[in-house]
Amino acid sequence: MATPPFPLVLSFLILLSLSSSANSYPPRSSKHAPRFLGKFSHLHQPTDQKYETRYFEQRLDHFSFADLPSFRQKYLINTQHWLGPSRLGPILFYCGNEGNIEWFAANTGFVWEIAPRFGAMIIFPEHRYYGESMPYGSREIAYKNASTLSYLTAEQALADYAVFITELKRNLSAQACPVVLFGGSYGGMLAAWMRLKYPHIAIGALASSAPVLQFEDIVPPETYYDIVSNDFRRESISCFNTIKESWDIIASKGEENDGLNQLTKAFHFCRKLDSSEDLSDWLDSAYSYLAMADYPYPADFLMPLPGNPIKELCRRIDSCPDGTSTLQRVYEGVNVYYNYTGTVDCFNLDDDPHGMIGWDWQACTEMVMPFASSKNTSMFPEFEYNYADDEERCLKDYNVKPRPTWISTEFGGHDFKNVLKKFGSNIIFSNGLLDPWSGGSVLEDVSETIVALVTEKGAHHLDLRAATDEDPDWLVDQRESEVKLIKKWLQEYYDNKRATFTA
Amino acid sequence: MATPPFPLVLSFLILLSLSSSANSYPPRSSKHAPRFLGKFSHLHQPTDQKYETRYFEQRLDHFSFADLPSFRQKYLINTQHWLGPSRLGPILFYCGNEGNIEWFAANTGFVWEIAPRFGAMIIFPEHRYYGESMPYGSREIAYKNASTLSYLTAEQALADYAVFITELKRNLSAQACPVVLFGGSYGGMLAAWMRLKYPHIAIGALASSAPVLQFEDIVPPETYYDIVSNDFRRESISCFNTIKESWDIIASKGEENDGLNQLTKAFHFCRKLDSSEDLSDWLDSAYSYLAMADYPYPADFLMPLPGNPIKELCRRIDSCPDGTSTLQRVYEGVNVYYNYTGTVDCFNLDDDPHGMIGWDWQACTEMVMPFASSKNTSMFPEFEYNYADDEERCLKDYNVKPRPTWISTEFGGHDFKNVLKKFGSNIIFSNGLLDPWSGGSVLEDVSETIVALVTEKGAHHLDLRAATDEDPDWLVDQRESEVKLIKKWLQEYYDNKRATFTA
Repeated sequence: MATPPFPLVLSFLILLSLSSSANSYPPRSSKHAPRFLGKFSHLHQPTDQKYETRYFEQRLDHFSFADLPSFRQKYLINTQHWLGPSRLGPILFYCGNEGNIEWFAANTGFVWEIAPRFGAMIIFPEHRYYGESMPYGSREIAYKNASTLSYLTAEQALADYAVFITELKRNLSAQACPVVLFGGSYGGMLAAWMRLKYPHIAIGALASSAPVLQFEDIVPPETYYDIVSNDFRRESISCFNTIKESWDIIASKGEENDGLNQLTKAFHFCRKLDSSEDLSDWLDSAYSYLAMADYPYPADFLMPLPGNPIKELCRRIDSCPDGTSTLQRVYEGVNVYYNYTGTVDCFNLDDDPHGMIGWDWQACTEMVMPFASSKNTSMFPEFEYNYADDEERCLKDYNVKPRPTWISTEFGGHDFKNVLKKFGSNIIFSNGLLDPWSGGSVLEDVSETIVALVTEKGAHHLDLRAATDEDPDWLVDQRESEVKLIKKWLQEYYDNKRATFTA
Repeated sequence: MATPPFPLVLSFLILLSLSSSANSYPPRSSKHAPRFLGKFSHLHQPTDQKYETRYFEQRLDHFSFADLPSFRQKYLINTQHWLGPSRLGPILFYCGNEGNIEWFAANTGFVWEIAPRFGAMIIFPEHRYYGESMPYGSREIAYKNASTLSYLTAEQALADYAVFITELKRNLSAQACPVVLFGGSYGGMLAAWMRLKYPHIAIGALASSAPVLQFEDIVPPETYYDIVSNDFRRESISCFNTIKESWDIIASKGEENDGLNQLTKAFHFCRKLDSSEDLSDWLDSAYSYLAMADYPYPADFLMPLPGNPIKELCRRIDSCPDGTSTLQRVYEGVNVYYNYTGTVDCFNLDDDPHGMIGWDWQACTEMVMPFASSKNTSMFPEFEYNYADDEERCLKDYNVKPRPTWISTEFGGHDFKNVLKKFGSNIIFSNGLLDPWSGGSVLEDVSETIVALVTEKGAHHLDLRAATDEDPDWLVDQRESEVKLIKKWLQEYYDNKRATFTA
C-alpha cells in the first residue's frame, strides 16, 4: 500500500540516466525499475498516530481557467491537542510528497511528537497524483498519457496546499492561526518553496534533506555519488575498493558465455538476469539507499536495516575469508540492504509497485537533476551527465520534453545566498552530511532567519523521524534546535498580532 | 491602435457591477462598454523613444505540460545606454499590462529618462493576450471562448516575464546583470508580485498606483468611489452636490415620456439613448477617469485634458448662470473630459475598441475587485457590492466562474504589513492620493526596504510619466526619491557581488 519516498525515485532517476531505453508510452520497461520497492510496500502504522482521513475538492489547474474536472485531495487531520481558533492554536502542516500520505505520516514522528507541546493541529495532505489523490477519478486515467499527467507539477501541488490551508482555516474560523510547514526530501523542497512563494500562508518551514539546489549547474553533478562513496570510504578503504573493483568484474562476467547464469546464481536472483547492467543498477540502488538510510540505530525506513548499515555492510565485505572473490564479497555485503532479516530466498529485479511512475514523470518534466560519477572520487562506474539522453528517454517514455531550466527560473537557486540575504525568512534547512542529497541542499546560513542545521553523522531527514531511546545526543540537540526556532517564529507571530490588536 | 490602460477597464468593471447583462458569448453588448475609448485610440509616440521591436517564443501554460501551441510575445528593447554584461549594466524592465506595449512605453517616460543615468538597457514586454502577443496566432481565435482565453492570467504573465528575462540574460551572457522592475496600475501589481514571487529574477520593483489590496475585504469596497468623490468635494462643495443630485434627476427624466429623447439632446449624443443608465454610466466613467488623470499640468493620458481637470470641471459647473438646470451644469462640466478640445459634435456611447475585452475576462476570473458606493460619503448613486451579480454576469458573458479569493491566496493581501515585515524587500509602492486606486494600494512603509511613497496631490502613476517643465516640486522630489532607492538597490547588489568575488 505504501509508496516509495523521494530518495528512492530520485536514485531511480539516476539509474535511468545511466542508460536510455526505448519503451513505448506509458512508462518504461521494468528493466529500469527499482528492484526492491515491493519489499517495503507494507506500512508500519505507528500506534500512537491517530487521525481522521478526509478529502478536499481541488482544481486541477490553478493557473488557468480551463474547464477541467476537479479532484479529491486526501488529507489526514488530528485536532486532539489543538488550542483552537480563539487561542490561535498553530497548525503543523506536512507538505506531502511523492507517495501515499500515510507512509509519510508514519515516517514523520517528529511532527506528531511536538504537536502537544505547541497545542497544535496536525495536517498531512497528500500530493496530487499519488495515493488516493488522483485526478480524473482513477490512477488508470490519471496516468494514461502526457495529457492527463500534465498537471502533475510542483507549482500545482504548492497551489493545492495554499488553497487547502486557506479554505480549511476559513471553515474553522482559524484565519489567524499560524501555520508551520514541514517536509522531507521532495516534501522538504515543497516546504521551502512554499515558504518562499506563499509567505502569507505559513510563518515558517522546516525543510529536511531538501535538495533545492540539485538543478542545472548549481552544484557539481558528481556531488551525490561522491557523498555515497565517502560514506563507504570512511567506514573502510578496502570496502570502498572492493565495490569500486566490482563493476568491471560484473561487466566482464556478463560478457562471458554462461556469465549471466553465473551472476544470477551468485546473487541469488529468482529469474535469470537479462544483462549485467541490471545487476549493477541493483547494487547501485542499494548503496545509494544505504547512504540515505545510514541511521545510527536500527530502522525500517526504506528497508529493515541495522544501525549504521554501511558499517555493517563493510564489516561483512571485509570479514570474508582470504581468497573470497570480489563478487562474493559484494553479495555478502549487499544482503545487509536487501535481506537483513534473512527471510529472502531469492531476489526479484522486477518489482514495480505503483506510485513510482509519478516521480518519473516529474523527473522527465520539471525535476531534471544532473548526476555524474567521477573516475577519481566515486566508487561507482564513471559517467558524465548528458542532458540529451534524458531528453531522448523522456520523449520516448512519456512523449514529453523536459524543461531543465524551469525549476531554477521558477524557484531560484543560482546565487541562492545573495538573493535571499534580504528576502525571505523562517526556513530551516536541516541536513545530515551522510545523506547524498545533502550536497544539493543549503548547508550554510543564508540570513539570520534562513538557517542551516547540519549534522555530521545524520542521514536522510533523520530529524523528522520519531524519537527513539537510541538517539544520539547530536540528534536530540538538533531536534531541540528546531523546536526552539519554531517556538521563536510562533512567538514573533503572536507578538506581532498582539501589537496589531493593541495598536 | 493603442489600447486602454488598466484604470479604464477597471472603472469599466465598476460600471458592470452596477447592473448585470444577459449577453451571449463572446463578450457583452456594447451597452456596457466604455464610451470614450475610441477617442484616444491614437498613440502619441514620443520622438525621443527609440527601440527595436522583437518577439520571444513563450509557453502558453507554464504550470502544466499540456501540449499547447506556443505564442510570440512582443517586446521593445533599447540598449543604447547599456553598460553591457562585463560592467553589470542594469536592465530596466517594465511589466506590460492590459494593452499594446507601445502605449505603455509612450506613457512611461520616467524609465526612458533614467536609463542613461544607470547605463541601463530598457525592456518593455507586452502582456500575453494584448496587442500583438496573441496565443493561437490571432486575436480572433485567442478571444474565441473561455477555453482559448483560459491562459490569460496574472501568474502566467509573471512566468512569461521570468522565463523571458532568464533567457534574454542567458543569450546576452548577462546573467549577472541586475534587473529592476517597473509597472503602473495593473502593471504595478505585476511588478510588486514579480518581486515577491521571483526575488531571484529582479532586485527591486517600482510599483506605481498598484492596488494590490483591492481584493476581498482587505479594504472597504467604498474606498474607490469615496476617493473620487473627495477629489470633487475638495474643489467645490456645490460641484459635488450638483453631481450628487444629478443621478435622481436623470433617472426620473428617463422614465418620463420623451425623457430619453430629452436626455439624448441635452447631452448631445449622436444616437438616442437606450436607457438613462447608459447616461449615468457615461458620466460615472468620466468622473472616475478625471480622478485618475487629475494631473497638475495638461496631459493626454486618457484623453486630452487641462491641468487639474476636476478643478476645471467644477469651475464650469459652478460658473453657470443662476437658474441653469442641474443637467445642463453636469453637461457643461463633463465636456472637460469628453470634449476638452471642443472638436466633438456629438458623443457616441458605443465605441468598442479592441483590447478592452481582455481585462473584462481578467475581471471575470481572477481580478474580482469589490466596489460599492456609500450613501453618505459618495457623490455617486448608492450601491452595495454583490458578488453574486458578478458571478452571474461572468457565467453569462464568458461561461466562466470567477475565483474571488484566488488572488489573495496566491499573492497575499490580508495582514499585508505583518506578513511582509520580515519577508521581501526592495519594493516601492508609489501612490498619489487623488487617484481612486490609491486606496487599494500600500500607503505605509512595510519594512525598511518595502516602502510607500505617497504624494498628496498625485494621481494615477503620475511619477512614471516623462518629466515636464510644469512638474511641481513634490513630483520632482518623488521621482528623485525613487531614483535614490533604485540606486541603493543597485549599489547593494554590486557590493554583494564584489564581496562574493573577493571572498
